[in-house]
Amino acid sequence: MMKFKSPPVNSLSLDFLTEFCISLEKLENDRACRGVIFTSAVPKIFSSGLDITEMCGKSMEHYAEFWRAVQEMWLRLYGSNMVTVAAVNGSSPAGGCLVALSCDYRIMVENPKFSIGLNEAQLGIVAPFWFKDTFVNVVGHRIAERSLQLGSLYPAPEALKFGLVDELVPEEKLQEKAMAVMAQWLALPDHARQLTKSMMRKVVLDRLLAHREEDIQNFISFISKESIQKSLRMYMEMLKKRKS
Amino acid sequence: MMKFKSPPVNSLSLDFLTEFCISLEKLENDRACRGVIFTSAVPKIFSSGLDITEMCGKSMEHYAEFWRAVQEMWLRLYGSNMVTVAAVNGSSPAGGCLVALSCDYRIMVENPKFSIGLNEAQLGIVAPFWFKDTFVNVVGHRIAERSLQLGSLYPAPEALKFGLVDELVPEEKLQEKAMAVMAQWLALPDHARQLTKSMMRKVVLDRLLAHREEDIQNFISFISKESIQKSLRMYMEMLKKRKS
Amino acid sequence: MMKFKSPPVNSLSLDFLTEFCISLEKLENDRACRGVIFTSAVPKIFSSGLDITEMCGKSMEHYAEFWRAVQEMWLRLYGSNMVTVAAVNGSSPAGGCLVALSCDYRIMVENPKFSIGLNEAQLGIVAPFWFKDTFVNVVGHRIAERSLQLGSLYPAPEALKFGLVDELVPEEKLQEKAMAVMAQWLALPDHARQLTKSMMRKVVLDRLLAHREEDIQNFISFISKESIQKSLRMYMEMLKKRKS
Repeated sequence: MMKFKSPPVNSLSLDFLTEFCISLEKLENDRACRGVIFTSAVPKIFSSGLDITEMCGKSMEHYAEFWRAVQEMWLRLYGSNMVTVAAVNGSSPAGGCLVALSCDYRIMVENPKFSIGLNEAQLGIVAPFWFKDTFVNVVGHRIAERSLQLGSLYPAPEALKFGLVDELVPEEKLQEKAMAVMAQWLALPDHARQLTKSMMRKVVLDRLLAHREEDIQNFISFISKESIQKSLRMYMEMLKKRKS
Repeated sequence: MMKFKSPPVNSLSLDFLTEFCISLEKLENDRACRGVIFTSAVPKIFSSGLDITEMCGKSMEHYAEFWRAVQEMWLRLYGSNMVTVAAVNGSSPAGGCLVALSCDYRIMVENPKFSIGLNEAQLGIVAPFWFKDTFVNVVGHRIAERSLQLGSLYPAPEALKFGLVDELVPEEKLQEKAMAVMAQWLALPDHARQLTKSMMRKVVLDRLLAHREEDIQNFISFISKESIQKSLRMYMEMLKKRKS
Repeated sequence: MMKFKSPPVNSLSLDFLTEFCISLEKLENDRACRGVIFTSAVPKIFSSGLDITEMCGKSMEHYAEFWRAVQEMWLRLYGSNMVTVAAVNGSSPAGGCLVALSCDYRIMVENPKFSIGLNEAQLGIVAPFWFKDTFVNVVGHRIAERSLQLGSLYPAPEALKFGLVDELVPEEKLQEKAMAVMAQWLALPDHARQLTKSMMRKVVLDRLLAHREEDIQNFISFISKESIQKSLRMYMEMLKKRKS
């Protein structure tokens, strides 16, 4: 079990992503480890997604390094040979939702105050094509199209209805349930399961691998636009005010 | 709000399509216009689809011109940068259904007498691949496969169940609801929403653009077959008799 | 109506597949035959899927011949011009499920003891990509991904929920219902229905046609691995013990 613990909101900073990838690689290479459960050690939030401070007022080099780390995280997680279960014990917008979507199975606490979704559009940002591909593979084209355009965040019960999460449980049952699901998946022979997973996800993984540098350039040129920088600064101001 | 008013059944004639495309282009270029609601000024019918008289007993040149206009309508509507909402206040078979499917959101009057679907197969006609692609993007492969083969028309409540429309409302609430939905979509920043929409629809739009002339030739050679002409004539006779 | 009668469990042996393909070809070429209903003459089982004895302890040549026959069956069935209805009157795992998935419509007896699914992973085997493509076309990507990894078998009521079958009926109504469905599909003009079906399935059929020899080589090298042979032998032992 891997517990995200980067208060206040488990945002995916460059440091967080780097550490996450290293941990994942270690586990991947550890033959004794056949599966991982991801959950949060921070109350009420699973992960708030990409760290906006990494995308605001930094150098081109920094943007490139950051985006490569985001790609790396997804490539490792979505392509993992291990069984991956997201035990979503709090809200999970944007990049946090991507982490959950990239797992094999998603269990969420049945608290309607916790919401999940790819809400990038609300910030004036476009979710990259591989966020979209991952999303479409889980909820289908129609729900993805509408949700991405509206930047929808779904309360847990609605997320279940759309198949964005697989199951809801009371908070106190989350860990137990995640262990039970993991046991069910680990009952299958690894080799066949891994080949099957790879068969299902390869097309989408290969698409990013084929366009990785292009995707980084896209990100840099988009994020460094003055209009985008301005709207990110406004969003950060709003977050600061809300806190105080 | 654009109201279709081409009695008796808002069929998509060459004139209708030409005017529709010109209006759409004007709105697209008008920076003050960020969204359009499509509805019908004709009672009980949204649009009856492609005008059969344009496909029956005409010259090859006419068929080509007509089909290019149908393509043009779809390319503009499915690829529109504006928010497009279909307020479906009547039946909407075949091409009428395509118009609705090409919008961002579909609201239908909750009258089970109003039906919607791609029923081309019932007339012995094959829906072209881009009708099919648009349909699959909304309802998924399975429902599309079955519905296209059977030429199914779904009463409003069933259409909702399959996700063919997003919402049902009483007739007197339709306009109000359409305005509310439009306001919700317009609350998002245009640029991110447009890029997201384009990302979702580009593959399918590009497929027609890459095969446009071929698709026209296909249509001409199919529609000018004596067997097809005969079945269209029979269908028109039936419609005339039903009217009188 | 074609009744599978190869006791004890209608397993898809080389002989069964060969005879099946010949019968299918005859019907396909018989202009008087526009549709086929597939059902089982063996109680409680529709088809148990690929015959494991054909995959265990045989020569490379035998594996190649067997796999080519499995491919041939699917190519003919999934690509059939006829209306194909599966009247699933018993359990239908693995290859048996593929037969049902390849039809135009699936009716299953509403007995929760009868189950259906692509459970290859449970045997340590990987369903080939065209099994997967057929499955995704019916239930969508998410359900397919999870079900294939877990090798899930679904009792009839659950299979209906996921759209893996289209309809459940009491056993005594199965034949009558299948005939009614067939009549509904045959009411459509053949030509348009066939072109529509081909448009929906061509991409997936072409993928196997383009990689057929490669797929045979993959199968041979996978199935002849000692670890796979061992797990198949163990599975056969278990089946024998269960019987006695």
